[in-house]
Amino acid sequence: MMDFFEAVEKRYSHKGKFLPDVVPLEKLELIARAGLAAATGNNSQCVRLVILPDRESVRPFGNIAPTEGLKTAPAAIAVLTDKSVLPGQRIFEVEDYSASVQNMLLAATALGYVSVWLDSPFWDEARQRAALEALGAPESCHLQAVLPVGLPDGPGTRRGKLPFDKRVSYHKV
Amino acid sequence: MMDFFEAVEKRYSHKGKFLPDVVPLEKLELIARAGLAAATGNNSQCVRLVILPDRESVRPFGNIAPTEGLKTAPAAIAVLTDKSVLPGQRIFEVEDYSASVQNMLLAATALGYVSVWLDSPFWDEARQRAALEALGAPESCHLQAVLPVGLPDGPGTRRGKLPFDKRVSYHKV
Repeated sequence: MMDFFEAVEKRYSHKGKFLPDVVPLEKLELIARAGLAAATGNNSQCVRLVILPDRESVRPFGNIAPTEGLKTAPAAIAVLTDKSVLPGQRIFEVEDYSASVQNMLLAATALGYVSVWLDSPFWDEARQRAALEALGAPESCHLQAVLPVGLPDGPGTRRGKLPFDKRVSYHKV
Repeated sequence: MMDFFEAVEKRYSHKGKFLPDVVPLEKLELIARAGLAAATGNNSQCVRLVILPDRESVRPFGNIAPTEGLKTAPAAIAVLTDKSVLPGQRIFEVEDYSASVQNMLLAATALGYVSVWLDSPFWDEARQRAALEALGAPESCHLQAVLPVGLPDGPGTRRGKLPFDKRVSYHKV
């Protein structure tokens, strides 16, 4: 149990290495359930998740996109969107997947883990193709991000944030 | 205090009317703080929030975009992105604002309120212009969404969701 606002405050992007400690499958499933519960435009539910429950299944993604997280994490969740879900209606791929990722980052934090939103490593066309192949994904899918999940190998660093009153105002911008 | 996973489960899109009960400013600020704490690509922090703390300040948005929420809610938060924040670097407007909205929807839920992600009512160019004018926003800003906040006037409806195993798999899609 972790208070919602505590999870919000504790969440950060862990860009360093992960410890090899296994993440129990039921914890990964709790994180995935939080991801599915995010808001979804037109109720399309276009987000698909693939749980990569062990180092062996994360390794190919660390080879394709050699970030510290994917090279070391003991588990990960791949986040895809599927264009085929609502024929003829607009789906909100980026909005939906982003809301889903935010829920999962918070869920990982609430369970005592760290994670990081890795999207740009998969923008390159060859990497995208290789990752989709590793996932056995149909052509209607796009890999939006992979979230490594585990315990941090050392403290994470947090970048400075603008003060509240530089970003929030009342009545007018 | 509300457990993180309870907030995730309770959150829904409230498409009905709101009660007129005032939302204390400190609650709106807690919601805004949660919004600012969301992940942000390149640490651009391109999301700007405008707290509309009373019915009077929400009314113009209900006139511009006559949804049940904006026509009745006692408070709202306008969510903008500012293109001018990181000159020369990519900013992640849709990803950032979506993660921020998801945090705020959960925060509202954790505080006992309901909300809804209203983006499409502001896509129309004339409405977008009118809303930006009402907010006194500079040209570098885009209004991404407005989130009404308050107590629901009657129970909300939730749309059916696909079962877990239709959206989550292991190792492969």
